[in-house]
Amino acid sequence: MSPDEKAAAIAHHLRAKEGTGAAFDIDILEVRAGYAKIAMTARADMLNGHGICHGGLIFTLADTAFAYACNSHNRSSVAQHAAITFLAPVPEGARLVAEAKEDAVAGRTGAYSATVRIDDDAVVAVFNGVSRTIGGAVLDD
Amino acid sequence: MSPDEKAAAIAHHLRAKEGTGAAFDIDILEVRAGYAKIAMTARADMLNGHGICHGGLIFTLADTAFAYACNSHNRSSVAQHAAITFLAPVPEGARLVAEAKEDAVAGRTGAYSATVRIDDDAVVAVFNGVSRTIGGAVLDD
Amino acid sequence: MSPDEKAAAIAHHLRAKEGTGAAFDIDILEVRAGYAKIAMTARADMLNGHGICHGGLIFTLADTAFAYACNSHNRSSVAQHAAITFLAPVPEGARLVAEAKEDAVAGRTGAYSATVRIDDDAVVAVFNGVSRTIGGAVLDD
Amino acid sequence: MSPDEKAAAIAHHLRAKEGTGAAFDIDILEVRAGYAKIAMTARADMLNGHGICHGGLIFTLADTAFAYACNSHNRSSVAQHAAITFLAPVPEGARLVAEAKEDAVAGRTGAYSATVRIDDDAVVAVFNGVSRTIGGAVLDD
Repeated sequence: MSPDEKAAAIAHHLRAKEGTGAAFDIDILEVRAGYAKIAMTARADMLNGHGICHGGLIFTLADTAFAYACNSHNRSSVAQHAAITFLAPVPEGARLVAEAKEDAVAGRTGAYSATVRIDDDAVVAVFNGVSRTIGGAVLDD
Repeated sequence: MSPDEKAAAIAHHLRAKEGTGAAFDIDILEVRAGYAKIAMTARADMLNGHGICHGGLIFTLADTAFAYACNSHNRSSVAQHAAITFLAPVPEGARLVAEAKEDAVAGRTGAYSATVRIDDDAVVAVFNGVSRTIGGAVLDD
Repeated sequence: MSPDEKAAAIAHHLRAKEGTGAAFDIDILEVRAGYAKIAMTARADMLNGHGICHGGLIFTLADTAFAYACNSHNRSSVAQHAAITFLAPVPEGARLVAEAKEDAVAGRTGAYSATVRIDDDAVVAVFNGVSRTIGGAVLDD
Repeated sequence: MSPDEKAAAIAHHLRAKEGTGAAFDIDILEVRAGYAKIAMTARADMLNGHGICHGGLIFTLADTAFAYACNSHNRSSVAQHAAITFLAPVPEGARLVAEAKEDAVAGRTGAYSATVRIDDDAVVAVFNGVSRTIGGAVLDD
């Protein structure tokens, strides 16, 4: 497998194992080494008390794209820190697309950023994550 | 109603309206003006691909406590920015308790911080949020 | 003037007015609409107690690039929030280059990211900033 | 020495060694284990292009209080991540007071928060930092 094929296999492996993947019906659109693009639809059970998509769910989608991107090199990694800025409200039924990419890696630490859009339109949130490898591989070679 | 009673009524109102409150079975433990303490159990459908609680769900709990705290003055508010640092993994079945408090308010902007603990034990995550009022009240006076 | 020429003129105007530009001897390398690249040398009076460049100065350089980028459309803007992740220590004498770019704009709010490198080498810090316009122009048209 | 006396000795040691302490004329007001309160006056050479104190300098003050607090246990520590929210502009001549405290420690990682006030008045910025120990002590026992 090429590095990009391996990255995609890892993302699909994580998606199959994780409880949240099925719970939130997350679709993997494209994964390469250091990159992941995924989607989720804002359902009624994802809305907050103001009737718009809960920031926690927008974060979860971006954080999942980040997880696929930072584990894509087959070094098991977890988030140590993450931040999100919300730019626009997300209505029920919106198709959210998160795209995460690697900005820098230094030793065990990686810096990633992601955007969340409604379809291919304007950015509704920007996300940043810092990962650390925890030893071991995600998939056996 | 006193300001603290009003704060609690607002949190229960938001909890009843939001899709996530029922979906994640969030319990309100204590709410006062500028303060909220809530709990949630890490279920199988909240785990990530490493078999521990997904950071997005830990974030969602802290973000919900933040929402109850920043709306507690009955000025409708949304998160503009939030950040989280993960300090320890959370196993399936853990009872997560998030406690949010107000650090400062300036005009339409509020700064809040929260901790997430397993029961009353060590902190597993620290969270910070910046809110903005969006006009209007949460509950009619 | 084209938008890019205007952006450069604004950055040079800010550089001339600000106390920090002269104090830290900041060089403007390139500015376009929504983009700024600047440099600074880590001096002895910028070191921390561990003998490496103080994180506050690395932040200040990135924040300055962010300021030039977010004011580049000639709408006076200030930082509302900023975050930085440090990836590697910076020794005395290192030439630091910060590059800031616009990720998204929504109403009065803008999201920017920046990298800080030593010369053209590895990234030593990644930075994210959220700006808000405060009314008025930086330069008269 | 008690832990609090040791913490104060470490802060004064760092203040004497660092280039920024003298450059920005930082005053140590109070240091205890996991806590530091320091002050700095916003000078003309600390202003940005809008004529108010540069966010980088407000960050640097908070980051310095964070450094004193996270090194206070005599385990050499550096910042891995830090974030700041600006709540109010700071005019030239203002006396800035930063107060940092420890929120949680887990292994090599520490979470700290700080406020920056003008004198004892309203908070002008809130700051959060994540530290990591790098091995070794700051002061010989």
